[in-house]
Amino acid sequence: MTKLNLLLTPGPTPIPPEILQVMARPIIHHRTHEYRAIFREVSEGLKEVFRTQNEVYTFTSSGTGAMEASVVNFVAPGESVLVLDGGKFGERFADIARAYGLDCDSLKVPYGESFDAAEVKKKLSAKKYKAVYATLLETSTGVVNDIEAIGKAVADSGALFAVDAISGLLADRLETDAWKVDLAISGSQKGLMLPPGLAFLAVSAKAKAAVKPGIGRFYFDSKLYEKALKDEDSPFTPAITIVLGLKKALEMIRAKGLEAVWRENERLAEMTREAVRAMGLEMFAKKPSNGVTAVKVPAGIDGSKLLKVLQDEYGVVMAGGQGEMKGKIFRVAHMGHITQDDLAQGFNCLEELLQKMGYSFTRGAGLKAFQAGARA
Amino acid sequence: MTKLNLLLTPGPTPIPPEILQVMARPIIHHRTHEYRAIFREVSEGLKEVFRTQNEVYTFTSSGTGAMEASVVNFVAPGESVLVLDGGKFGERFADIARAYGLDCDSLKVPYGESFDAAEVKKKLSAKKYKAVYATLLETSTGVVNDIEAIGKAVADSGALFAVDAISGLLADRLETDAWKVDLAISGSQKGLMLPPGLAFLAVSAKAKAAVKPGIGRFYFDSKLYEKALKDEDSPFTPAITIVLGLKKALEMIRAKGLEAVWRENERLAEMTREAVRAMGLEMFAKKPSNGVTAVKVPAGIDGSKLLKVLQDEYGVVMAGGQGEMKGKIFRVAHMGHITQDDLAQGFNCLEELLQKMGYSFTRGAGLKAFQAGARA
Repeated sequence: MTKLNLLLTPGPTPIPPEILQVMARPIIHHRTHEYRAIFREVSEGLKEVFRTQNEVYTFTSSGTGAMEASVVNFVAPGESVLVLDGGKFGERFADIARAYGLDCDSLKVPYGESFDAAEVKKKLSAKKYKAVYATLLETSTGVVNDIEAIGKAVADSGALFAVDAISGLLADRLETDAWKVDLAISGSQKGLMLPPGLAFLAVSAKAKAAVKPGIGRFYFDSKLYEKALKDEDSPFTPAITIVLGLKKALEMIRAKGLEAVWRENERLAEMTREAVRAMGLEMFAKKPSNGVTAVKVPAGIDGSKLLKVLQDEYGVVMAGGQGEMKGKIFRVAHMGHITQDDLAQGFNCLEELLQKMGYSFTRGAGLKAFQAGARA
Repeated sequence: MTKLNLLLTPGPTPIPPEILQVMARPIIHHRTHEYRAIFREVSEGLKEVFRTQNEVYTFTSSGTGAMEASVVNFVAPGESVLVLDGGKFGERFADIARAYGLDCDSLKVPYGESFDAAEVKKKLSAKKYKAVYATLLETSTGVVNDIEAIGKAVADSGALFAVDAISGLLADRLETDAWKVDLAISGSQKGLMLPPGLAFLAVSAKAKAAVKPGIGRFYFDSKLYEKALKDEDSPFTPAITIVLGLKKALEMIRAKGLEAVWRENERLAEMTREAVRAMGLEMFAKKPSNGVTAVKVPAGIDGSKLLKVLQDEYGVVMAGGQGEMKGKIFRVAHMGHITQDDLAQGFNCLEELLQKMGYSFTRGAGLKAFQAGARA
């Protein structure tokens, strides 16, 4: 058997050949009409995928850079913020807020659980917060949160609402404007099917009005991006090749239609969950996302070894648990350019390996259930 | 005449086809043995081009991100720093320092001039500074600074010495360790022949010992990069494809030899200066860099129109003046993968256009002088 290079990971995700080709063309300069026209086009196109009329800033950074931008521009040291922390990426918001001297409270749920808007409302009525930070898809647990309901609660409180949709965008529905999200964050290497290197921040008028002096920032200073955007420009040299790839990615998404992209992710997620259950495995997320499925490592199986052998011998890369979930779960992504065939191949290898490692189940049951979910 | 796509700009520079090919391969995951081995290799390789034994951190950002990292980790708000500001990028250091609440003094020279180490020494004896920020190649003016002499003066004062070698690295000689540079900064899209998206910071033991709490930082927190580097890892998802390209770029540079790269840049720079003089044009930089040549726009010629037509009609991209030099100079780069043939084509087009625009000179004189400088 030939070793595959199959990424079933929640970022980076596989890049379509059409996009790789665009990025392999000779580079163009960013201070040219040609580039400015492309940058204007992608800045508009990003609004469509974020479902917003707000401007979207593009940073050359990982998604964490846009998370930092959502903190350092809109609140000042000493001000109170609330972080909904249900996993590693919720935690990251709290780490950033504390690194910048904010008064940061964390509302926590156990890993694998989602946030209840009523609980958030209660918390918001007990103390006044300037901003609330939440996660659409908590990548570390595979949980999707009810951003619509939480958004209502936050809007009622007057606080700004920031949502990390780095993994969630294009996998799980996000209606930035309709759900009153003031700061929507994403990255290039997930649903957008690009290499890592770009991060995005959609900024509402309410957020713009809240921009604060008094906190150290430069590379992620929103005013510089706002000003540059008016000239179809970036304040600093952008990751040009990835922006060119983004133009192509947005064209592909527009050709398919956003609703169709969401439906396809939902379909693949449901098929994946069916496969997991048919193999006698247990889902980890109570409210599972359509972008990534987290699965409990069955008793008696070494989770780290499972993923290592899957990667080293089969060439199938799935993600392990992060933080306190290390070794306890594995995660199968179905976002971006990951296809039904990719997932079928992945489950085939996973079944073979689990059997070899002594896990007792009906071999083929997972793949059969997966395929049964496929449309004719 | 076919319109070219000829970048004679000081970043981005043309990318060799071998590197474009590597980056066009299916992406790999960064939490794999394969990637970790590559990241270890490039982190070691970067030490060679920086001429340092120090560790080099790799950020996913433009070069400005690494400049910010050189500020936010090693000095604290209220502490005094000195910026040697001889152009747009010197100014940027001061902007960053002030954005983070440092007590920042600027030692200025007029655009086009370089810094005198004796003047720096005088300044350093008049006031105690925690760090001094300088530029190897000030891209906006084409000036190269005597980092070796300035480095001695700074080391004697006990301050940390940070050098922006974003454009300078691989074009002008930089001996990070021998010249007592504590923080050496560069980016991917210049001498390293890659797309923009990665930035680098070489950090001395003296700088590591100076790492300060008390300043807001997260994405550019050096401790996170230091810790991750021990596991051949990045704290946040890196721009994987550009790291893969970097492996190839470093192989190409090693195969040629660093001394040979410097000599080639020097040769092309000298040929460029000969061409400029033979056309009756005036050099702008008193101490010109080997990476980019800045030329005064001759009297009676509209500098902005010159560059616009050169770009729109010929497809030759040269850089204009930045900041207060806008319209007054143009800049021809000879760094990275820019070849003798590229420059000859560029001068051919420039001569044709200057003649059309009414500049009086001996047509062909520039190209002839350029070619006369070429080795047999």
